[in-house]
Amino acid sequence: MIAASSATQGNPVRMGMVGGGEGAFIGEVHRWAARLDGKINLVCGAFSRDSENTKRTGNALGLDAARCYADFNEMMTAEAALPEGERMEFVAIVTPNHVHFPVAKAALENGFHVLSDKPATLNLDEAKQLRTIVSKNPNLAYGLTHTYLGYPLVGEARGIVEAGGIGKVRKVFVEYIQGWLATEVENKQADWRTDPARSGGSGCMGDIGTHAHNLAEFVTGKRMTHLAADLSIFVDGRRLDDDGSALFRMEDGVKGTLSASQVCVGKENSLSIRVYGETGGLEWRQEEPNTLIRTYADRPTEIMRAAQGYLSDGAQGWFRTPPGHPEGYIEAFANVYLDFAKALRSEGGVTTGIDGAVRGMAFVEALLKSSDNDSAWTEIEA
Amino acid sequence: MIAASSATQGNPVRMGMVGGGEGAFIGEVHRWAARLDGKINLVCGAFSRDSENTKRTGNALGLDAARCYADFNEMMTAEAALPEGERMEFVAIVTPNHVHFPVAKAALENGFHVLSDKPATLNLDEAKQLRTIVSKNPNLAYGLTHTYLGYPLVGEARGIVEAGGIGKVRKVFVEYIQGWLATEVENKQADWRTDPARSGGSGCMGDIGTHAHNLAEFVTGKRMTHLAADLSIFVDGRRLDDDGSALFRMEDGVKGTLSASQVCVGKENSLSIRVYGETGGLEWRQEEPNTLIRTYADRPTEIMRAAQGYLSDGAQGWFRTPPGHPEGYIEAFANVYLDFAKALRSEGGVTTGIDGAVRGMAFVEALLKSSDNDSAWTEIEA
Amino acid sequence: MIAASSATQGNPVRMGMVGGGEGAFIGEVHRWAARLDGKINLVCGAFSRDSENTKRTGNALGLDAARCYADFNEMMTAEAALPEGERMEFVAIVTPNHVHFPVAKAALENGFHVLSDKPATLNLDEAKQLRTIVSKNPNLAYGLTHTYLGYPLVGEARGIVEAGGIGKVRKVFVEYIQGWLATEVENKQADWRTDPARSGGSGCMGDIGTHAHNLAEFVTGKRMTHLAADLSIFVDGRRLDDDGSALFRMEDGVKGTLSASQVCVGKENSLSIRVYGETGGLEWRQEEPNTLIRTYADRPTEIMRAAQGYLSDGAQGWFRTPPGHPEGYIEAFANVYLDFAKALRSEGGVTTGIDGAVRGMAFVEALLKSSDNDSAWTEIEA
Amino acid sequence: MIAASSATQGNPVRMGMVGGGEGAFIGEVHRWAARLDGKINLVCGAFSRDSENTKRTGNALGLDAARCYADFNEMMTAEAALPEGERMEFVAIVTPNHVHFPVAKAALENGFHVLSDKPATLNLDEAKQLRTIVSKNPNLAYGLTHTYLGYPLVGEARGIVEAGGIGKVRKVFVEYIQGWLATEVENKQADWRTDPARSGGSGCMGDIGTHAHNLAEFVTGKRMTHLAADLSIFVDGRRLDDDGSALFRMEDGVKGTLSASQVCVGKENSLSIRVYGETGGLEWRQEEPNTLIRTYADRPTEIMRAAQGYLSDGAQGWFRTPPGHPEGYIEAFANVYLDFAKALRSEGGVTTGIDGAVRGMAFVEALLKSSDNDSAWTEIEA
Repeated sequence: MIAASSATQGNPVRMGMVGGGEGAFIGEVHRWAARLDGKINLVCGAFSRDSENTKRTGNALGLDAARCYADFNEMMTAEAALPEGERMEFVAIVTPNHVHFPVAKAALENGFHVLSDKPATLNLDEAKQLRTIVSKNPNLAYGLTHTYLGYPLVGEARGIVEAGGIGKVRKVFVEYIQGWLATEVENKQADWRTDPARSGGSGCMGDIGTHAHNLAEFVTGKRMTHLAADLSIFVDGRRLDDDGSALFRMEDGVKGTLSASQVCVGKENSLSIRVYGETGGLEWRQEEPNTLIRTYADRPTEIMRAAQGYLSDGAQGWFRTPPGHPEGYIEAFANVYLDFAKALRSEGGVTTGIDGAVRGMAFVEALLKSSDNDSAWTEIEA
Repeated sequence: MIAASSATQGNPVRMGMVGGGEGAFIGEVHRWAARLDGKINLVCGAFSRDSENTKRTGNALGLDAARCYADFNEMMTAEAALPEGERMEFVAIVTPNHVHFPVAKAALENGFHVLSDKPATLNLDEAKQLRTIVSKNPNLAYGLTHTYLGYPLVGEARGIVEAGGIGKVRKVFVEYIQGWLATEVENKQADWRTDPARSGGSGCMGDIGTHAHNLAEFVTGKRMTHLAADLSIFVDGRRLDDDGSALFRMEDGVKGTLSASQVCVGKENSLSIRVYGETGGLEWRQEEPNTLIRTYADRPTEIMRAAQGYLSDGAQGWFRTPPGHPEGYIEAFANVYLDFAKALRSEGGVTTGIDGAVRGMAFVEALLKSSDNDSAWTEIEA
Repeated sequence: MIAASSATQGNPVRMGMVGGGEGAFIGEVHRWAARLDGKINLVCGAFSRDSENTKRTGNALGLDAARCYADFNEMMTAEAALPEGERMEFVAIVTPNHVHFPVAKAALENGFHVLSDKPATLNLDEAKQLRTIVSKNPNLAYGLTHTYLGYPLVGEARGIVEAGGIGKVRKVFVEYIQGWLATEVENKQADWRTDPARSGGSGCMGDIGTHAHNLAEFVTGKRMTHLAADLSIFVDGRRLDDDGSALFRMEDGVKGTLSASQVCVGKENSLSIRVYGETGGLEWRQEEPNTLIRTYADRPTEIMRAAQGYLSDGAQGWFRTPPGHPEGYIEAFANVYLDFAKALRSEGGVTTGIDGAVRGMAFVEALLKSSDNDSAWTEIEA
Repeated sequence: MIAASSATQGNPVRMGMVGGGEGAFIGEVHRWAARLDGKINLVCGAFSRDSENTKRTGNALGLDAARCYADFNEMMTAEAALPEGERMEFVAIVTPNHVHFPVAKAALENGFHVLSDKPATLNLDEAKQLRTIVSKNPNLAYGLTHTYLGYPLVGEARGIVEAGGIGKVRKVFVEYIQGWLATEVENKQADWRTDPARSGGSGCMGDIGTHAHNLAEFVTGKRMTHLAADLSIFVDGRRLDDDGSALFRMEDGVKGTLSASQVCVGKENSLSIRVYGETGGLEWRQEEPNTLIRTYADRPTEIMRAAQGYLSDGAQGWFRTPPGHPEGYIEAFANVYLDFAKALRSEGGVTTGIDGAVRGMAFVEALLKSSDNDSAWTEIEA
């Protein structure tokens, strides 16, 4: 169970939000996640470039109208001027990709911690700049909401690998396939994701391939060092990749394949990882996140299940309900928020911080470079 | 998506809670559920018979100390004396079963709506008394948190049946099996559930069989009228049933079987229903709640999935995230709270109200009577 | 692997067949099963009451025309007159139910072993007569083709129970549901199965409920002693039950439920059993027969798989291919034939013999009696 | 159902076998497959280089001792000298890889049809030689036992693609992973498979990657033209690849990934294919071969099942039993034999013939070349 006695007990962390006005999707998810455990309070926001939208959104959320700001710069300045126990402690950035960097920069420079949606920035260069800024502000936390690491069984998988439970890792299969962009789609979500100016140099890979990369590195505890990629645009007229696959290599001789696609008709949000080592294997699927499959050479395959007593203490701490009570995406997201809130109260570190942020962008750059170079093996520089 | 423009928008419903002090499980679940959507605020509580526990619980939840009451009677009186826009609007009852009735009674008599954990009361007689009280207070809402009806695909199943999608219903298989009481268990959860004074005349059937009964009636839209039951105590020394099965009959010639067990070793929280009509069937399992299986006579079986565009509008309104983002038990519970909050703002009715409450207790009484009478067919009087 | 050095090696058992002419289904299945391992040769037959059909069938099977007989009596007489090393050794009976008894009787009385399709006879009385005949011919083997016991993982399940692997058995759920008779069906298969004169007093229960009964007794190693049943006819105009459920009790305090139905629209051939004991459980489904699920109180659920090295030696001997090469219904049926062939060569016993045959008929009689008697608990007399 | 009135009716095809002596695995599988339907008779064999083994094997199989030959050359000569209606019609080659070519060559040159285990030859050069020989003998059939194409739902998948059921194909994921060579293994099966002299230039890819390649081409109806591969040897001391992945491209803009591995601990025989087109997708797994998943853009995913009436007539013809009676590997293999037997009786063509044989070897050569050349894109020359 999630510990009832954390440092946030009776002292919720104060959050501001940039983005997430009426009509946005992911901002609402962030708010559910932040709200669930009662350990984080939303105190202010600059939800939209449309100030009427911001006002309506803030009002619906019960915010003080004075703390619904016209833009993020105004928010930084105004909040910084408030008393310490009152002003926001961190900014949640839930805008389209191209706004991540300027907001994060402004927040850090004004003394606020940052929890940003991913990818961290529009490109690797920005990510490196951000790393420089973060490194100059050692008292400030920077976190990236790689939601899927918030699933406790993903942590359990990492723990098993780390403890040698499958022996030396050899082979990784990771993929993230969806179908919602199989045809030309026109809506707010699809719009900015397929626009280079707002999404960055990659579409599908930047949006979801980065989750697959992040998951592979997290579970194995190894860095992906090289890849050979073939990105595709299957839908006529689209300007960014909507599909791609790569061979990859990690530290210590691990090899693997990574695929991401948004044109696999009928697939919903199918992120999965399978890792095989010298003595065993692990398999996990996001769409059935409360199950972790563990394979052995000479024993029956095991179905490890959420919240069971046989899981490690580490995993146990991230479930809210007993076995058989499914927890899902919002709970995983809430765990990412809780992880960050705990870090702000000095109860632990941030799972995906600035290093992960830079690595993600370096992964995307390497993909683009390899794919443009006839799928030549390309180093991931991070 | 859950509508952003409900009447609770910017005007959260004010909730008080009885039960749910430190160390309790289900009270915390109720709070997550109430909190998730930001449409319900906890404003006061009588969390424990131990007033120190109540204080600590209230403090951790950020409540005003003055509204953390020593007992539920004090809470009713004190809250009733507060201004209308400030005092609690409804009481969430999350105590062991034997306290449900007195709290509900007191709340209704003091003009507060009631949302109670199930079963509604300790026995059928109390439930009928409660029905009388409720009927005298037509302005007050009474709701029972039959969590599993909060899963949107359960509603979709009901909708399909209602629309004739499987033809005239013939046969129902419903079961709820767990394994956690397969041996003598000593903990707070197990303790009161196996104690007749606190749990009522039935253990397993009162605790989880009632969910199966409720689910069968909800999905089919038919009342269960008769049953022939065989209840068992498999663990030595236990005083209440820990397992049971029944044949049953519903209105309009529907037949079925219902099983509930807490001694099926290794099962977690395995509630499932399968319904077959003249032209099709439906199958749903709580542990994978985002999937509804639909069978046909001459077409492939379909996997209906949460939040997909092909679901009915009714179901659509109860998802928070797009397809492939699993929602689980807490979201279902939050839907039950949201349903109740909407009812209080005159946006709809309560899914399981006092009639369902009485029906649940009548079901349990019929089970006990049949099982004591050599499994004779017994009418469910409600 | 199936042992290459059985006593049938190079000396196949000689089989005659009654029933199974052109247009029949189950006769062909029996022939595949008998043929697969090369240890049984079909040498003669009385395939149909239509002698032209018999001739064509025999010719297509490469039989000597002289050994394609007009009726089973002629076959018995003629074969008995052949030299010992040439004449058939056993008769496979693959006719509709009402012919099982007279053929079996004639075969035994003429000194031939019998392998009969199930149910053994039209009613309990015939089955008891058959038992008397068998008891008078101790040198003759009588076997019933309860196909599903031919799946090696069913045997593994029994072995685990027998070895105490799940502790004292408490609860059994067994069911066999199909959908093919959900509406009025007119074809050869449906025809005799719904005709009391050819099928016996029960339709669905006699046809498939008996498999469920047999499976429950086999896996648990316990006899079912009492049942309380509710049989139904859901399709207008049908004369025999097409659905039914029963509560049951077995020796040593085991309880359970059994359902069989042919009106569950969209279900194919869904036979499944789940058995829970004091310390563990087992779950098996015929439609995925190469997997056996094993549950524990405090360890992950295990997926036991066909042909794996961790299975018992007993089970190992009944697989033909390595793990991951699915074996199915025909292989299971072939195992039943192989089991019988080995028995004829004194290499073991018959899995389901005359006792199982009588028990199956007694089960059906008890079902009918209970259902006619308001589902009163009824003893299974066998 | 498999048609009862084929040209083989009452006139079984006569088969000789090279390889498959006592202790061999795959030879026995071929014999089950050939025997199942009663349309092929084994009449002679050269089962082993050890003539005692050949004698014992033939005797156990009930063969005439005179037709159990010391070697395949003797068999060709002797059989060719027999009368036409008596001598074997085709040779089944079930030896290790390096013997495939010389036997096939000898058979064809002696006027016998050939059905060979795969891969066809030790390398591409031999395959091309074989193609030349075959092309000179237009009256002789050459078939390769690509078992997995014998699963009827694989044919159904091809048929759906061909009929435009998923629109223009875009992306293919195909993989074949096993775990049995995750450590150094010493047994007859492992031995020759890891020996270049007997297995050819590739281990894992030649053995099982070729199945994946063949399946991808069959289902999509497209030729794989280029690949970029990364082969691995994970087990120390092994001389041939035991794992590998490739990016690939097919005709008409189809892209995909192919992985094969024998070091994925705990995996059995996990061959699977997923194909996505512009309007739908198909997913099939060998370990559950009776299910074909079909995805749509805006309708529920469908579970297509073996032998159901909604399948195409083409697929229907290859099932033996009704829905819900699992058919498996042996039945698939039997279908390959039946397909070949029908071709010999002029009832159809051979599914995988000499072109497929050459393509398979060209695929392996391209893999080796690409992997040796830093995973450069390499053309598959066939």
